[in-house]
Amino acid sequence: MLSLQSASTARWLAQVDADLEAVLIDHAHCEKKAAGVAMNLLFSYVDHTDLTRAMTEIVGEELEHFNLVLDLLNRRGVLFRKLEPSSYGSRLHGLIRRAEPDRAVDRLLVAGLIEARSCERFSLLADHVADLELQAFYRGLFESEARHHATYVRLAAGFASEPIVRDRLHELAAAEAEIIEQGDPQPRMHS
Amino acid sequence: MLSLQSASTARWLAQVDADLEAVLIDHAHCEKKAAGVAMNLLFSYVDHTDLTRAMTEIVGEELEHFNLVLDLLNRRGVLFRKLEPSSYGSRLHGLIRRAEPDRAVDRLLVAGLIEARSCERFSLLADHVADLELQAFYRGLFESEARHHATYVRLAAGFASEPIVRDRLHELAAAEAEIIEQGDPQPRMHS
Repeated sequence: MLSLQSASTARWLAQVDADLEAVLIDHAHCEKKAAGVAMNLLFSYVDHTDLTRAMTEIVGEELEHFNLVLDLLNRRGVLFRKLEPSSYGSRLHGLIRRAEPDRAVDRLLVAGLIEARSCERFSLLADHVADLELQAFYRGLFESEARHHATYVRLAAGFASEPIVRDRLHELAAAEAEIIEQGDPQPRMHS
Repeated sequence: MLSLQSASTARWLAQVDADLEAVLIDHAHCEKKAAGVAMNLLFSYVDHTDLTRAMTEIVGEELEHFNLVLDLLNRRGVLFRKLEPSSYGSRLHGLIRRAEPDRAVDRLLVAGLIEARSCERFSLLADHVADLELQAFYRGLFESEARHHATYVRLAAGFASEPIVRDRLHELAAAEAEIIEQGDPQPRMHS
């Protein structure tokens, strides 16, 4: 699904069941971070007009989602607070090569893989949770994450040839699947 | 006008006439930086719901303006490129106190003053330039800069009492007027 090389397992759903509140708070942080990542990409590659425009849209959408999650927390009386993130994001970012244009390709593909995993997990959550409001909430986010994934992969081809991007995406997706397989002891969106 | 304690002078308009292209490119950078400032404020004060929502809107609007300026440059065959900024922004940021909640008040008021000065200068430019497209362009940005100014000043009152905010705004506006009076040798949006 969306370049991913593994499906999330019952182990993760058990973590969600054990602490849904932590997963919801972490989700808010993830949306905020996704907006920050898109903004940083815009700042770094400002001479790529198509990237600039796409990032403008993604920043706006991620911040809208962030507000949606805050509203949801608010309705449930859950206080939004700092939360130690899972190691997922930092481990993926550790795979980004340093020298341009490889760096641009990797930053875009890593962002795309995070969107893909979020998309896969929203879909899983929508089917898993009993709460009707949450079901609708996760279904509502699914489409934009899939679209963002496609946008990031498309933009990577502005920095390297299509076959090179495809191979690197495959490599990074394998690493992503391994990180997900190893998991994280704390219940998080990407644990 | 909008808390400002001085009006821009003919000296600045002469700089614009001498190098309109540099002012346009600098303008694009200013819109990008304004989006970055709003995003940083959102990240720093994420527990202030009203601030979070307002920053979400401002980030989106500033990025839209950034795209508008890029379009304008494109239509005129001007290449968007790096440009040494004027000292205005860094000098204003140097006035921000370090300890919270003073820091929040100052960051918001400085952001508000930059919006106010941009607003004042857009209005001046709209009357000054002969080019009809540019006149319409600057008039179109005027309203949102005035609104952003009001938003920043209103949000500052979430971190200190209204009289304290008013006094500090007066103090910072006096410093801003002095920085503008001293100017900058290179033609920029805030030189």
